[in-house]
Amino acid sequence: MDPSYHQSASRVTVLANLFGIIAIILMLVWLLHYRGGIDLDSNKADRIFNVHPFLMFCGFIFFTGQAMMAYKTVPAERTVQKFIHMLFNLIAIVVGIVGICAVFKFHDKQNIMNMYSLHSWIGLGTFCLFGLQWLFGFTVFLVSQASRETRRRAAPWHINGGRALLYMAICAAETGLMEKATFMELQHGRESHLINFLGLAILLFGVTVDLSVALARYI
Amino acid sequence: MDPSYHQSASRVTVLANLFGIIAIILMLVWLLHYRGGIDLDSNKADRIFNVHPFLMFCGFIFFTGQAMMAYKTVPAERTVQKFIHMLFNLIAIVVGIVGICAVFKFHDKQNIMNMYSLHSWIGLGTFCLFGLQWLFGFTVFLVSQASRETRRRAAPWHINGGRALLYMAICAAETGLMEKATFMELQHGRESHLINFLGLAILLFGVTVDLSVALARYI
Repeated sequence: MDPSYHQSASRVTVLANLFGIIAIILMLVWLLHYRGGIDLDSNKADRIFNVHPFLMFCGFIFFTGQAMMAYKTVPAERTVQKFIHMLFNLIAIVVGIVGICAVFKFHDKQNIMNMYSLHSWIGLGTFCLFGLQWLFGFTVFLVSQASRETRRRAAPWHINGGRALLYMAICAAETGLMEKATFMELQHGRESHLINFLGLAILLFGVTVDLSVALARYI
Repeated sequence: MDPSYHQSASRVTVLANLFGIIAIILMLVWLLHYRGGIDLDSNKADRIFNVHPFLMFCGFIFFTGQAMMAYKTVPAERTVQKFIHMLFNLIAIVVGIVGICAVFKFHDKQNIMNMYSLHSWIGLGTFCLFGLQWLFGFTVFLVSQASRETRRRAAPWHINGGRALLYMAICAAETGLMEKATFMELQHGRESHLINFLGLAILLFGVTVDLSVALARYI
């Protein structure tokens, strides 16, 4: 492999972390300053809702991105990297479950129907497939007695399946922001611009995480 | 390269075309049956608007997807495949420009502000970068006297840049559908379900086109 690859890939993981941290900061400014705070046990319905975007990006998407980059960012043996990859994805799932429960709690409190929007279809569909992907990876690559040949054949589908799921999760995040902004009838204004920059930062996080994985096979 | 790759990649291009055609059919049913038709010169503003989603998916995204798959679907020499790849992307750009003009015309007619939503930011940003990517590809791979080494170094960035742009275009499409559905206050109902299935078909088109390109480097 071209030695320049390691340099390019590590630069891209730095960029990905930069966009991820910018997105987390913008998310916190949005939810704490403009939307009244984040609290799952609040009496105010909005604060319960806010747990949802916070955990789905700063928890689910951010951690699964870190898991995908672990093979480049964690300076350790391959088996340790694999374990951290699995662990970060497990944390992403647990946090994601709490984040999804938060929006169902909000809907119950406000008597809003569940699962009617494109956002909810993409989001829950992606999350269920993500759970299956985790189980598949855990079984084939960590605990099973699968032969080296089986693992070699399964790897491209696991890697590309994971990349597809990351993009589907990014689509879920973007449609979620779009739904919220349209519902609140925001147009030009500070909050609207903040949401748009948040959406762009999330998109660029997805693109750069994916690039850090994809470039490995090209350069 | 493993010979099973060709089989897998061609199966995935068939799947991609299937999802693409399903999306085109659902889009036509939505715009013709539920939204009153498609006409850029109509007196009815809605018909002018409908040109936008129609051309942006059935023109722009569908053609750029075909361009990305041309190296696998067009049974011809490499130079012919390259030319068709360039031509399909050029058609995508021309059709995309008409599609973007349609929504500006609709906004002018209805006195709606331009460029305030996340959808418009992602969409126009992606389209401008797509234009630059086309110019880059045309210059480096088709008309220039660039050395073989320069092309070899530029190829991974061109391929992965194109993949990232496809996903960004899919995000633009999903946020566009989400904005329209939320604005129309659709909840459970036939049109709402139709839009959601359309969104899923577009998403699966993007995932399978990308997979047909990405698998080439893995299997």
